[in-house]
Formats: sequence, C-alpha cells, structure tokens
Amino acid sequence: MYQISFQPVGRRGQCPVDKSLLDCARETGVGISSICGGAGTCYACKIQVLEGKVSVPTSHELEAFSPQELANGWRLACQTYPASDLKLHVPPESMTTTQRLQVEGVEVGVPLDPPVHAYRVEMTPPSLSDLQADADRLLEALHQQHRLRCRKVDIDVLRDLSPRLRSWDWQALVSVRDDEVVAVGPVTSRQLGLAVDLGTTKIAAYLIDLSNGRTLAAKGMMNPQISYGEDIITRISRAMGPPPEGKLRTVVVDALNQLAGELCAEVSASKEEIVEAVVVGNTVMHHLLLGLPVAQLASSPFAPAIRQALDIKSRDAGLHIAPGAYLHLLPNIAGFVGADHVAMLLATGVAQAKGVTIAMDIGTNTEVSIIDDGVITSASCASGPAFEGGHIKHGMRAASGAIERVRVTKSGIQYQTIDGVSPVGICGSGVLDILAQLYLAGVLDEGGRMLANHPRVRSNQEQQCEFVLVSEREREGRPAIVFTQHDVRELQLAKAAMRAGIQVLLEAKGRIEEEIEEVIIAGAFGSYIDVSSAVTVGMLPSLPLERFRQVGNAAGMGAKLALISASKRTEAKALASWVNYVELATAPDFMQTFIQASYLGHYRLANGKRKEID
Amino acid sequence: MYQISFQPVGRRGQCPVDKSLLDCARETGVGISSICGGAGTCYACKIQVLEGKVSVPTSHELEAFSPQELANGWRLACQTYPASDLKLHVPPESMTTTQRLQVEGVEVGVPLDPPVHAYRVEMTPPSLSDLQADADRLLEALHQQHRLRCRKVDIDVLRDLSPRLRSWDWQALVSVRDDEVVAVGPVTSRQLGLAVDLGTTKIAAYLIDLSNGRTLAAKGMMNPQISYGEDIITRISRAMGPPPEGKLRTVVVDALNQLAGELCAEVSASKEEIVEAVVVGNTVMHHLLLGLPVAQLASSPFAPAIRQALDIKSRDAGLHIAPGAYLHLLPNIAGFVGADHVAMLLATGVAQAKGVTIAMDIGTNTEVSIIDDGVITSASCASGPAFEGGHIKHGMRAASGAIERVRVTKSGIQYQTIDGVSPVGICGSGVLDILAQLYLAGVLDEGGRMLANHPRVRSNQEQQCEFVLVSEREREGRPAIVFTQHDVRELQLAKAAMRAGIQVLLEAKGRIEEEIEEVIIAGAFGSYIDVSSAVTVGMLPSLPLERFRQVGNAAGMGAKLALISASKRTEAKALASWVNYVELATAPDFMQTFIQASYLGHYRLANGKRKEID
Repeated sequence: MYQISFQPVGRRGQCPVDKSLLDCARETGVGISSICGGAGTCYACKIQVLEGKVSVPTSHELEAFSPQELANGWRLACQTYPASDLKLHVPPESMTTTQRLQVEGVEVGVPLDPPVHAYRVEMTPPSLSDLQADADRLLEALHQQHRLRCRKVDIDVLRDLSPRLRSWDWQALVSVRDDEVVAVGPVTSRQLGLAVDLGTTKIAAYLIDLSNGRTLAAKGMMNPQISYGEDIITRISRAMGPPPEGKLRTVVVDALNQLAGELCAEVSASKEEIVEAVVVGNTVMHHLLLGLPVAQLASSPFAPAIRQALDIKSRDAGLHIAPGAYLHLLPNIAGFVGADHVAMLLATGVAQAKGVTIAMDIGTNTEVSIIDDGVITSASCASGPAFEGGHIKHGMRAASGAIERVRVTKSGIQYQTIDGVSPVGICGSGVLDILAQLYLAGVLDEGGRMLANHPRVRSNQEQQCEFVLVSEREREGRPAIVFTQHDVRELQLAKAAMRAGIQVLLEAKGRIEEEIEEVIIAGAFGSYIDVSSAVTVGMLPSLPLERFRQVGNAAGMGAKLALISASKRTEAKALASWVNYVELATAPDFMQTFIQASYLGHYRLANGKRKEID
Repeated sequence: MYQISFQPVGRRGQCPVDKSLLDCARETGVGISSICGGAGTCYACKIQVLEGKVSVPTSHELEAFSPQELANGWRLACQTYPASDLKLHVPPESMTTTQRLQVEGVEVGVPLDPPVHAYRVEMTPPSLSDLQADADRLLEALHQQHRLRCRKVDIDVLRDLSPRLRSWDWQALVSVRDDEVVAVGPVTSRQLGLAVDLGTTKIAAYLIDLSNGRTLAAKGMMNPQISYGEDIITRISRAMGPPPEGKLRTVVVDALNQLAGELCAEVSASKEEIVEAVVVGNTVMHHLLLGLPVAQLASSPFAPAIRQALDIKSRDAGLHIAPGAYLHLLPNIAGFVGADHVAMLLATGVAQAKGVTIAMDIGTNTEVSIIDDGVITSASCASGPAFEGGHIKHGMRAASGAIERVRVTKSGIQYQTIDGVSPVGICGSGVLDILAQLYLAGVLDEGGRMLANHPRVRSNQEQQCEFVLVSEREREGRPAIVFTQHDVRELQLAKAAMRAGIQVLLEAKGRIEEEIEEVIIAGAFGSYIDVSSAVTVGMLPSLPLERFRQVGNAAGMGAKLALISASKRTEAKALASWVNYVELATAPDFMQTFIQASYLGHYRLANGKRKEID
C-alpha cells in the first residue's frame, strides 16, 4: 500500500499497486472526472505526478500527452498505477466537485394540496377501564377529533409509537397520507417535504414546508455516480458490468441522504420531519436509484422497466426520512425521456399553451417536446457531452476558472471566467459562444471548417487548425487553451442532434419553424447560454429572441409542484400518458435532416432540406 | 478462550472466562433451558461438569444442589464460568430441543378464497413499434387477458421483472393481491402460503398450496427465544433490558426463515413461491416478531401497541419469501389475549355455537373465552409454567423420557414415558395425572396436603413430604424422581387460575357451570392431558366428559384458514372487535374464587363459594 497525497485539495489516501490512481481518488473521496468510465479515451482525468514513481505510460497516455507533458509528470489517472508513495496535482479542470450547480428555477404558485396532511390529536391515556391499544387509540382520536377514517399505521411508525405517545403525554401531530399514518411527531413538529431533481451530472434538492409550500432551503451537489462514467450509456454499462454490484445505486442513495441531512441542518429540522419525498430524473437515473434493471435500456427498443408513476416507501429506496414516509416518482415517458422531462412540462405549464410550443431540457441527452394545442409529442436527442465540456480538448464543466463568455473580433478576443479567476478551460456556454463568434468573425465557414484568416488561428501537431483563446505566453508558460477543428466537429454533432430533434417533431405535427410561438429552454446549460449564440450556430431555430424563455431548473420546480400538490401529480400522470413518443431513428428523412442541421448560421429546415435566411 | 464440549449432543464451542456456560451453550447452538433468564432461580439449566475446572459455586447453586451433587459436578449453567477446557453433560431435562412438538390440529374445510390469486399471461415483446414499458405491459396483459385492473407492481418485483420476462419468453404467472402484483414467476411456478403459530414455547409452521388449500408440509420447532427466558414476562424484561437490542426479534425471524426453507425443501419448492404468510401468536410474540415495543405490556393496564389486524410487506418483518409478498397478522384482543386466541376461535367456529361454550388455550398463559349465543367474552389467566414442567422439582417439557401418564394404586405406581425410554422427569400431562391419582388414592387431601399414608411417600431434607415416582434404586443409584408437597402447591396455583378464569367469565354472563354445553381445549398441553384427571383435580368444571373437546393446535389451524380464505380474515376482524375483554384482577370476588378454585376434587363454584358434589 502506498500513501497518495492529492493536491491542492490536500486529501491523503492509500493505494495498492494494482489499483489505478482514479480508483484511489474515488476511495479517498477526491472527485476526479471520468467521462469514459476509466477506458482511457476521454482524457478527462488528467493529473500531474509531483513526487514519486508510477507505472509506464499506456498507449492512451502516449496519445493524450506530448513527450514534454509526460516528462512534466502529466498522466491519466485511470491509466496510472503507483510504484511508490506519491504526491499528485489534480488541476481544477479534472475535478468534479467545484462545479457551479444550478438549483434555482422559475417558481410557480399552485394551490397547496399536499398528499400528506397533519392533524393534532389528544388522547386519554389507557387505564383498566379503557384498555384500547395505542395505535387503535390514535386512529380513534383522528376519527373523533377530525372526522378522519384512517385505517392503517405504518409498521415503522408503530415500532416507536407506544413509548413516544407516553413521553408526549398523549398529544401528537399525526401525518396522514390517504388512509395511512406515515409519521407521528410531537405537537411542535414540522411537516416537511423533499423534492429532488436527480440529474446525470448533478443533483438539486429542495426542502419544502408542506404547511405553506415555501422552499426553506435548496442545495446542489454533483451526482457521485460521475466517478463511474459521465454519460448515461457509460453508467448503464457500469451497472451491467462486474461488481461492485449496486454501487451506482448506493452512492446516489447516500448522496440523497446526505443532501436531506444538510438541508435539514440548515433550518434546524430533523430528517424525521420530512414526511414525503418526490424525485424526478431521467429514466436511467430513475431506474438506478430504485435498483431497477437498466440492461434493457442499452439496446433497441429501449424499454423502461416501468413507465407509470410510483409511490413506494422511502425505506424501500434506502432513503432515511420519516419512518413511514413515501417516495413519489413521477412517470417516465420512454427509455430516454424520463420523469424529469414530465416535471419540466408540469412546471412550465406548457400543456395549457395555445399554438405551437417547443420545450427542451438540454444535457448529454436532450429531451424535446412539441406542444401543439395541448397535444404533446416528445423525442430524445443524443446530444452528447460536448456542451458539458466532454470530448472538447480544453472543455470542462462550469467550475471556477471556466471560460463562460467569449467575444471574438477581427484581431483579438475577450472572455469572462467563472469567479473571474485565471482561465483553466472552457465550459458549455463558453464553447457555444466561441462557435458563434468564430462563425460571425468568418473564422468558421457555414460547414464548420476553420480558416487560417485570424491572427489567433494556428496549426497544431496534427496539422489541424486551432484557435488560441489563451496563449502559452498569456498563461505564463503553461499550455495554451485552444479551440480546435475537432472541437468544432463535436459541437456540430451535438447541436445538430438538438435541431434535428426539433425538426422531426415539427414535421410529425405538420408544422414549420415559423409557427413556433415559444421555445422553453430548461436545465443548467440552457440557463447559462447566450440564446443568440445558439441561434447563430443553428442549434435553435432562427426565431425572434423574445420567443425564447430560459426557465432554469424546471425539473426541480416540477418535483416541488408534485410534492405540494396532489392535483399536480394527477396532472403529471395524465400528461405522461397522453404524450406521443417519437423514436428519432425511425423518423423519415432523419439522417438528412441531421446532416443539414449540422450547418452553422441562420436557415430553415424542411423535409431534409436547408434554406438560408438572413 | 476455552474449548467447551457439550455431551451427549456432541457440540463444541468456545467460551471466554467472563461468559457463563449458558451463554456459551446459546452461542454454540445447544438449547439449554432457562426459565428465569439466567438469574439462577429456576434451576432449569442444570448441567454436569465431567472434565475441567469451573468457577466456585454461587449461593444459588448451593441452594439448588446437595454437597454430594456439587461434588459430582452438578452446576447451574447460568451461574458457572469456565476456568479451563471443559467437557459437560447436558441431561435431557435441561434440553430445549427435543420436545415433542404438536403441529396437528383438527382441519376445517372452508371454501377456497385466498387473498392472492394467480394469473397466467402472455405478452408480445417490446419493439420499435410497441415501446410500452415492461411493467405497464404486464399490467396491460392482465387487463386484456383477465379483465383485471391491477394498478401497482411491488418495487422488489419490479427490480427483477425486466430480465425475467425476457428469460421466460414473455410468459409468466402473476400473483395479484388486491390491486398489486406481489410476485411474478415462470408459468410452472406454484402458489404457496405459509401459516405460522408462533407460540411462547414452540413454533408450528404449515406450507399450504393456495390453489387447493391442501397442507403440503408441517413442521415444528422450539421458539429459540426460550434461551432468553421461558415465560412471557421474562421475555418482556429481556426485550426491555440491555443489549443485544432486538436479539429476541432476530432469533425468531431467523427461525421463521429457517422453517420456511425447510418446509419448501420438503416439497422441492422455492421460498419465492410463498406469496402470502399468516402468523398468529400471543400479543407479546406478535409484538416481538414485528419489533414493536413491549414495555407497556409489562405494567397495568397492559395496552398493546396495536390491536387491529395488520398487513405488512413480509420484508418489513425480515421474512424472506416472494419479494412482494405480504405478511398478515390476525388482530389481537388485549395485552394478554392475542391473535393466537382469535385464530383458535376462528378455527373452532365457536362464534356460531348455540348456548354456552368455553374455549381455552392452555399454556404458561391460559386464554379463556366464553361464548354465549354468539357473544364472546375473554380473559387471560396467569397459569404459569407448572404444566410445562417449570417450577416443578423434577418437571420437564414433553421430551423423550418424560413421564406422561401415571396411575397410582394403594401400594404401587405405573407410569408411561415418552418414547418408552427410562424416565428422566415428569412433563405436564404427567404431573396432572399424578395430582389426580394422589388425590384419588387419598395421598392428597382436598386442600392439597400430602399425607404420609402411602409406602412411596417419604420426608425430604426440608422435612416436607414427597412422593417417589422412581426411586434411587429403580434408577440404579441416580437421584430419585419425586413429586413434592411444593410441586402440589405450584400446580394448585396454576389450575386455580384457569378454573377461576372460567368462573369469572360464567358469572360475568350470569351463567352457571351446568349450563356449559361444550368446553373446547386447544394447545399442546391441552391435547395430551387426560381430561378426567383435569376434572378430578378441579382444574376444569365437573361436567360429563363428552362435553369436552380437545382440538390440538387450533391456533395453527386458524392461521391456515386466514391464509386460504379472505372471508375468514374478515370474520376474524369482526370477531376480535366484538370480543369483550375482562381483566380478571378487577372482577368482583376474584381472589375468593381463586382461593376456592385451588381445592382438589369435584365441586361447583358460585360467587366465591365452593360446593362439593359427588
């Protein structure tokens, strides 16, 4: 076992000779990115060996690094094994833990109608002339004092009931769901709810006061499954793969319990006061959380284990809140359009929209719906991780030091970084801006070819053009931050997937782009992007900017609505069952539309053809 | 750590110097009796040290044994600590594991109406033109093929569903309970049910074929909680006491899982084919199994945590059968009249009896009901462990070598032992016979005093009379088996409790003994006793013998009825809610009645007075 020290986070761990530094980092709790799940192909887990000996570089590492970089100790954590005690430098762009996490969303007011209601009861203690059992006494008091015919007491509530009623002098606040007692607390206890948006990359959690619908606290954290692969397909293959079986489940369950604890600590509440939880996520996250099989999601026809909404005991999901509390999961739509999309549709109220609306949640997988006079049709676009920094040479997530805004002029460049610190890489909104700005500046043509007509364009070792955002000199000798021809191609594929998805849905409804009255953009990336850049590169249809609405974490808001409103749950069920799902691969002209949608600039699409507009 | 060898069972265990031999036996899996829970007062855990050194005798041991017995190595396992490797002899009378276990009962035919029904379904596999989720597909098939509107699939069923449906080629046998799928198996799978009578001393379990109501296998075992005290009160205090917290629960849950496994093995079934379970037990056993608190049962007014029937997921009780299966628990009546008594009332059908019926389940706690034109009134009698061999000098449980039948003549004695082997002690039916025979022979007067008018009566060291059943000579030098004046007093207390309970119930209904049309006697002890002996000693009212009916394990039969018949469950709920419970301690004249009921012989009781009859 070797001692491994991770800098600058300052954590120390132990690592045997047959474990990779990535595995060691995971076990030590140091969040190192890994998009490919340890295959050596994504180059996200770059680290620098400062002191000590390691294994010889693999072929992946010889490709990832120049001889000079290797000489300076740069390695891929997933490919490197220790050969002595080590001191490592983990650069910010390889860290998973400092990302900006959006929890805010546009709040929507709904009449308060939570599925759990609280009732204060007082009982007379048992005596030789009144031999009623404790639970029966409680149910009788609910009936006498609140005209409530409640039939069941949850078994875990029952396990504590007798001593508690005695210690509370036979007064209690009783939480009732349908005809079941799910929690019993002292009369001073609160009625809290937990709403969670469980994303592939991040988790946003909200602690809600069920007595008034207010959000008491909100908190985000990275989805710890990230260490097991950043995109959904990698996660599925990890879940299907060799042991540790169930590890993907336990890390996310632990994370939810941790978030619940931290949220409660912020408002001096007890986790036992959380009497209901709602979790939304895409279908894979939904299945992994519940321990449902995901193998069938890895191949056509991508059938989910279950589509309908679920109400299960939170304990059956491993969630430790009030002993008898339920966890509600909104319905899924299909294998790659999940409950988070339903939550987004719910929160934005688009089902009630007049005319034609597009609602999309942008991520490594982008879900798109068209709402045409209340009829919803959905599709899933494999947009990939490029807009989250994956497969982009100097891409990174939206963490401190990421370039998030860029303006390119004929001769120079301006940029802005997160937290205003020295640049370390480029996040999603940054790469979108660069793509748009380089196109506007004429550095990229409409087909995406980079032209050597700008002082910052140079040729790299592979004889490809690259645009230098921050030069070696500007970084005081450290490697330049560049945007390459290869990066352009990756982004074209990503944005073409989205645009083609929108187009297929329009054509399925016999609509054209001009008829779209509103485009709703949800999700973290969608909130931070400059919409005009997205329109400029043809990622979104060319429409007046006032028709676009960025709604932040709408999935989280939808989870909150479902938490505080039983009628919103009913609406979500109805909504999910109405939705028509379109499998893009089977749509006519899809490939043609996709190819046309990879072009930059303003244009209209129709039947696999592209027509330039001004 | 010392090596401890237990003979004749031939088990070996390890024991540290600070653990008693009783604790060591428990950990080794050797069942040594302990009525007092290790306090040194019951003398049930007698063992003989054959080789090795142990701690010096405690004051309890100096009382329990003569100097000669101590010199021969006799000790109390709970008071003795090892001081070297040991070889121990555990005599049969100290063993818990070889008791005769009654599982048979009078079977009652009812129309088959189990709460779980099985449906065979065939599905078309998902395809790109049929994207339905797996669970939704299953529910749709139930609807299409069986007109069944089932809404839920248990989460644990869901966890395996997708790969299983695929491996079974989309054909399955679906077990449905109310509107929920609780199990999905291959089309060849069976529908089994588990019925359990969870007694303080023993557990009887039955494996039932739910498709025809037949009992496929039955099995009994000792309740392993016995190592933690033989009677209910000791168990309650152990459950309230210091850690191991929950140990009383886990040992009994483990036992149920073991029984389920053994029953399935007998008929080559899988535990997953058990789709429903019913457990009945007294209120303390019920609470300990479910992990409910029992502290409030230890003091007046003895309120149960819950009285009403419970349907919980079997996994919430730790029972490993079909993943989504339920465990049903019949309702309790009061703190000391539990679901086992309800089951007995159900199985015997006494609620429908005309006239006056007495139904009783005899044990360390004896539950008695009077049924008077369909109105049921119940009471609990603290009859104590004397009839199970406890507190009786040479008492033992109904194990091999126990004297179970006795006839005494003026000059001699005849007896019969279980398995016909050499006598080692006296079990319950034996001590009842002796009491009756000694009374009939004039050795005991009606007040229970032993007279020195028989060649086998002698005076013991405490200057008390004792009756020699098997002399030292007849046992070839080993200690005689005797029946002492003290034993008579213990039995008088026990039988007076039962008789007084019956009398209080009669008087509560304004009835007299002659009006009793039938006395139903359930339970193991009740099945083996000679009813005429019980009448002779005044334990039961003096009535023509044809009015007594011994029904065996009626509680187990009631559990089976509740398993195969939903309408019988409804009947049990109604029955338990109708029952009037009488707390004997608060009944007028109870103490007077109790004192009069301690007399031997044939007599009538009325208003605390006793009147001899022929």
